[in-house]
Amino acid sequence: MKILIKNCNLISMSEKREKYEENIDVLIDNSKIVEIGKNISINSEDLKVIDASGKVLMPGLINTHSHISMSVFRETVDGLKTQDWLTQKIWPMEDKLTNNDIYYATLLSCLEMIQTGCTTINDMYFMTDDIIKAALESGIRLQTTRTLMGYEEKDESRLTELKELLDRYNNSDTISFNVGIHGLYTSNENYVKKCVDFAESENLHIHMHFCENEQERNDIIRDYGVNNPAEVIRNDFKGIHNILAHSVKISDEDINILKNTNSFISHCPVSNLKLGCGIAPITKMISNGICVSLGTDGQGSGSNLDMFETMKFTALLQKGINENPEDLPAYEVLKMATINGAKTLNLDKEIGSIEVGKVADLILIDLDSVLVNPVNNIFAEIVYNVKGYNVDTTIVNGKILMENKVINHLNINDVIENCKNIIDRIK
Amino acid sequence: MKILIKNCNLISMSEKREKYEENIDVLIDNSKIVEIGKNISINSEDLKVIDASGKVLMPGLINTHSHISMSVFRETVDGLKTQDWLTQKIWPMEDKLTNNDIYYATLLSCLEMIQTGCTTINDMYFMTDDIIKAALESGIRLQTTRTLMGYEEKDESRLTELKELLDRYNNSDTISFNVGIHGLYTSNENYVKKCVDFAESENLHIHMHFCENEQERNDIIRDYGVNNPAEVIRNDFKGIHNILAHSVKISDEDINILKNTNSFISHCPVSNLKLGCGIAPITKMISNGICVSLGTDGQGSGSNLDMFETMKFTALLQKGINENPEDLPAYEVLKMATINGAKTLNLDKEIGSIEVGKVADLILIDLDSVLVNPVNNIFAEIVYNVKGYNVDTTIVNGKILMENKVINHLNINDVIENCKNIIDRIK
Repeated sequence: MKILIKNCNLISMSEKREKYEENIDVLIDNSKIVEIGKNISINSEDLKVIDASGKVLMPGLINTHSHISMSVFRETVDGLKTQDWLTQKIWPMEDKLTNNDIYYATLLSCLEMIQTGCTTINDMYFMTDDIIKAALESGIRLQTTRTLMGYEEKDESRLTELKELLDRYNNSDTISFNVGIHGLYTSNENYVKKCVDFAESENLHIHMHFCENEQERNDIIRDYGVNNPAEVIRNDFKGIHNILAHSVKISDEDINILKNTNSFISHCPVSNLKLGCGIAPITKMISNGICVSLGTDGQGSGSNLDMFETMKFTALLQKGINENPEDLPAYEVLKMATINGAKTLNLDKEIGSIEVGKVADLILIDLDSVLVNPVNNIFAEIVYNVKGYNVDTTIVNGKILMENKVINHLNINDVIENCKNIIDRIK
Repeated sequence: MKILIKNCNLISMSEKREKYEENIDVLIDNSKIVEIGKNISINSEDLKVIDASGKVLMPGLINTHSHISMSVFRETVDGLKTQDWLTQKIWPMEDKLTNNDIYYATLLSCLEMIQTGCTTINDMYFMTDDIIKAALESGIRLQTTRTLMGYEEKDESRLTELKELLDRYNNSDTISFNVGIHGLYTSNENYVKKCVDFAESENLHIHMHFCENEQERNDIIRDYGVNNPAEVIRNDFKGIHNILAHSVKISDEDINILKNTNSFISHCPVSNLKLGCGIAPITKMISNGICVSLGTDGQGSGSNLDMFETMKFTALLQKGINENPEDLPAYEVLKMATINGAKTLNLDKEIGSIEVGKVADLILIDLDSVLVNPVNNIFAEIVYNVKGYNVDTTIVNGKILMENKVINHLNINDVIENCKNIIDRIK
């Protein structure tokens, strides 16, 4: 099937194009973008035309750190210490989650993503088969893992589980994998090295929580006998591409080390604030040439998956704590949520910008709203005033998942009802 | 006319009621709330019934600091130093604003407020007559002033202008006034004292920018010969109720002084971040018994008037910078946006909570959304996941300004077109 998007205002995020172009047509053939230009006309029996007049077309947003099955735990943390929340609320509830629960909780997140214009997510949880099942049914692009943590030989069975997943979904267009090490503080060095070896042998990159809070930082320094946690990445990761989620409690020396370690940062500002972790020094990381992308974290701490909100927090927090309004202009933040996300997930040959040859992961934003007008700076409007609610159409891998705010292939009320039942049962 | 709101889930923000009650009816007679209870039945010819099943009814949000005619300057600041933005962009544009421009720019803001559930706003600008005209036409509740600043005797004419406004709108239900001193750094002490005397003689409270950034703080210390800016409030304000907008650069000693000065804080977190001012230490103020309410500031720096967003930033920033997730539980933040706002504007006898005898400034929130479910904590859902877009119905002074997201008494497209024309002409 072909899709022709007519007369959009294009923010392609491609370095080869202007940052903003008006009245552009984009032609999609099956999963791929095949032509971008003015007045494309085509004769085809199997053609779907989308009138995008007055709307902005941009790459689907890329969420580089989450736990999407935690949608049902939204707002259980309010007013609690993180450790109390985990031990008294989350862990006892997680123990009761069934495969079917994971499936529905993930579907709820997939709906959130489709509605808010996020087309790719990097997830870390368990019962990964059920997460993948929901992702495939919804059509979103998922990078996932079987979460790895351990101290003993028996824990290596988790690597076997991951290997089985790799084999099972080997040919999927929309499912990819990484080696998800939960954290240096929840594994010993021997186990981490086994995971790194596995990543090397499978030619995968690594995804790991890193220095989310002061306690974790101190634990790593103690357990690994280093002065700065980044030394572990340098010493043990063999130069393998790695995604470090959070990286809040990072010293200047950590940044100096990380910039030479093939590390990519997933910045999760909302979750970091909510859990009282602090604010990651991403302006410093960026000025040191480190690629920073954006994540929401799971809804347990991140509340929701609206990446527009995450962009706004990202831009404002750095200006605020650095007391410098020149930090992070809007276009830089758009890069973080698109092409930098693609680079972080090692998928930038396929997604992250609108270019001929890349797959069609695209969103249309409707600017016909009192809160977004008048438009004086389109990039800043998107970062500061557009919300997930303004997303009109979401396309992943050339498939229309939502058009004019309507999702036809999933039963929204059924998913919400199932999720309500889950939390009523396990809370 | 009577309005009967049936079967709502009530968050009244009244200390006399439960925090959350299900299946409640609220009866409004003209502008007033006359009955709250279960299964209210009434026979009246002039009765409008609103079915609020499954929706949350709460007090309209109260925005305690803004410049609503700056709606047309949205996103002109991106990537600029504040002083450059003001001198190169805002001031030259403001010089070209006509009365008609102010009217339309204000109407755009009124539409924003109605759509996002903000029923009362405290404004500070000029051409106040045109601002009031727009406010009256839209139906929102406005507290306003003629902005006062000066160094010379001739500047006292601004007080005469304010006096004329007081006389002209003496009998309005929805328009009230305060004495809006722009700031200590843009007036001399003699002029400030004249304004305080005027406030005293007219029995009005004062509204003033205060310590928005480090430079302003230093200027006040230098110009007024004090060690801490709060000393000026203590020495010169005669104990008069005063609203201090921003109060970002505040020392512990300032807080110690302010807590005994009849000062109310308008916290504007989004604007403070955007302009690189920093983050106000409101947790400390609150623990010292100072009443803190919320403001968006004008859209030039605050982007939009969505008070739900301001609540979220407020809650998250304090948890983040204090590294304490127990700070500012959601219900406390709801208080800041409602009853504390009413106290700040000296209107708490009329608005800020849903109680018999108060005027009907109410909003209905529709929770039927993927991003808000499942609801585990209703207060946290509202602070962290509800957006202006979820507001369904807005009532001010017993008048329905929006119902089921439809606004009938204003021409939205006409307002947007006029605002686009303004910025095209003056930029």
